[in-house]
Amino acid sequence: MKRPIPRPLDIKRGRVDLTHGSGGRNMAQLIDEMFRKAFSNPLLDAANDQAVFDAPKGRMVMTTDTFVISPIFFPGGNIGSLAVHGTVNDIAMGGAKPLYLTAGFVIEEGYPLADLKAIVDSMAAAAEEAGVQIVTGDTKVVEQGKGDGVFINTAGIGVVPDGVAPSGEKARPGDKILVNGTLGDHGVAVMSKRESLGFETEILSDSAALNGIVADMIAAAPGIRVLRDPTRGGLATVLNEIALQSDVGVTVREDDLPIRPEVKGACELLGLDPLYVANEGKLVAVVAPEDAASVLAAMKAHPLGKDAAIIGEINEDDHNFVQMVTGFGGSRIIDWLAGEQLPRIC
Amino acid sequence: MKRPIPRPLDIKRGRVDLTHGSGGRNMAQLIDEMFRKAFSNPLLDAANDQAVFDAPKGRMVMTTDTFVISPIFFPGGNIGSLAVHGTVNDIAMGGAKPLYLTAGFVIEEGYPLADLKAIVDSMAAAAEEAGVQIVTGDTKVVEQGKGDGVFINTAGIGVVPDGVAPSGEKARPGDKILVNGTLGDHGVAVMSKRESLGFETEILSDSAALNGIVADMIAAAPGIRVLRDPTRGGLATVLNEIALQSDVGVTVREDDLPIRPEVKGACELLGLDPLYVANEGKLVAVVAPEDAASVLAAMKAHPLGKDAAIIGEINEDDHNFVQMVTGFGGSRIIDWLAGEQLPRIC
Repeated sequence: MKRPIPRPLDIKRGRVDLTHGSGGRNMAQLIDEMFRKAFSNPLLDAANDQAVFDAPKGRMVMTTDTFVISPIFFPGGNIGSLAVHGTVNDIAMGGAKPLYLTAGFVIEEGYPLADLKAIVDSMAAAAEEAGVQIVTGDTKVVEQGKGDGVFINTAGIGVVPDGVAPSGEKARPGDKILVNGTLGDHGVAVMSKRESLGFETEILSDSAALNGIVADMIAAAPGIRVLRDPTRGGLATVLNEIALQSDVGVTVREDDLPIRPEVKGACELLGLDPLYVANEGKLVAVVAPEDAASVLAAMKAHPLGKDAAIIGEINEDDHNFVQMVTGFGGSRIIDWLAGEQLPRIC
Repeated sequence: MKRPIPRPLDIKRGRVDLTHGSGGRNMAQLIDEMFRKAFSNPLLDAANDQAVFDAPKGRMVMTTDTFVISPIFFPGGNIGSLAVHGTVNDIAMGGAKPLYLTAGFVIEEGYPLADLKAIVDSMAAAAEEAGVQIVTGDTKVVEQGKGDGVFINTAGIGVVPDGVAPSGEKARPGDKILVNGTLGDHGVAVMSKRESLGFETEILSDSAALNGIVADMIAAAPGIRVLRDPTRGGLATVLNEIALQSDVGVTVREDDLPIRPEVKGACELLGLDPLYVANEGKLVAVVAPEDAASVLAAMKAHPLGKDAAIIGEINEDDHNFVQMVTGFGGSRIIDWLAGEQLPRIC
């Protein structure tokens, strides 16, 4: 579509200003030269305020997540790739194949266009890799001091294969609990870049799209009971949610939890428990005991599951406690996170 | 679902703090006692990270919008009702019946829970009135000074009736242009509450859900060519977008534009042109000449269309100009908005 725009955006030196959110010519230019260029696909290119497409057959899922992570660029990713991974993963945790995402930006006045382009390019690459399209979007600009760089909301829809219906209330005593890899990497990677903390680590965020590994797991066992990604609040929070929703107890074994020594070390330094630290490329699966071996094998065969492990079981418990059997053979309650552990981790 | 929460939220005196966005117990409490209580429906109540439902038949639309309006409470509404109306309207402008919305909150630390409750209650009432369900959501909290009260993203999906496919590129020379009522009310109502401006008016925002009137218009003429809501950038921006997308020109008649005298007066005072001022309960329709009378009659029969009018025509124009025939018989170009007119109007 032609536009009455005289000069291209100065992406190298330019900054976002309030006119980029005003609905006029400058907003049209930012959308054309920044967002449509990176995300181009037939649905988005139609340039209406909504994307139109044929409804899929069967059941669908719909989800939303806003990303306010600080810092915006972190080891292993940035808010753009994270915003795609996070919503793709929420769709995948419904057992669904992700189809379409929306993208809503809140940008602080003065934000460098070069940084915005790096974010948008990461989103485009992450969407391409996950096999989803960003089909419609929205851009708002707020005055300096009324935001913090860039916040991104992504909402998404996906289609659920027949016979697949994982849900938080389906865990049954005897079921096995699996994770696809090491815990706490994302949270530690992000914290290492917070100026106030002053520690260094080589740990990268695990931010990744899990729809591929989930498809393989479902192929191995369509009846997976629960799938959930342990983001904010970490593994501990997800296990407590499942215990409550399914009205069961949970037991995990400390020795079976995959945690990198560097993450353990950083958590000790910071006074954090890695079980409460956020992940962005991890999932927790609850499966019937007879499915555990085949699901584990499917996970280990996928690049995002090579450190997959069976970490515990579901048991009967009227109190819905999550317990951890420690390396010394004792046990302790893994309670709900009471206060704030890691603000703005996603 | 039971939750291990000892004391209810102190909605009267409490404030949002960072723990409400941490993924732990306090976030679970805020979601249960604030959001689920207000928005309750079977899809949301399932309490997973995604809503699951049967796919509709036919074509669907998907849309997103983030709301950063300042002030958060304004004459005729607040950010909550606006967030529902805005996304319902974007769906309706695709000719679709809205089905489900998502809601993503970014809340500044320290925001009063009582104000949040007022916003959430308005969202629930607006959703109820529009016949849509809020089926999933997300809550983030940012530190004081890193946000501005509350930002809300709503994304939504809807289903398009067979044979209906309005789109920005479908305007043809000879087509008639209609609006459903007075222009500029929302922008002027919001500006009247900006402290720095210091003028008073009795004007209320027109914020409203347009899916009902659109359904009536489609029943009168399923072949409506273009539907668009003149929000940010106002009527002038929408007409310029349509002219470009359809590669046509637009002529409107100043005397036929419904604008309240108080809005005209306020715009003169502020040095604004009401054609560029935002609306949140208005639509622009482009229809074939033979459909104009029946669509106008359908609009006028609806409470949100009693001031509906035919305001102009589509014509051939290689320059895609939007022109206004003035009351004195002259004509002027209604150009794209070049700078920022009204920041954070939605």
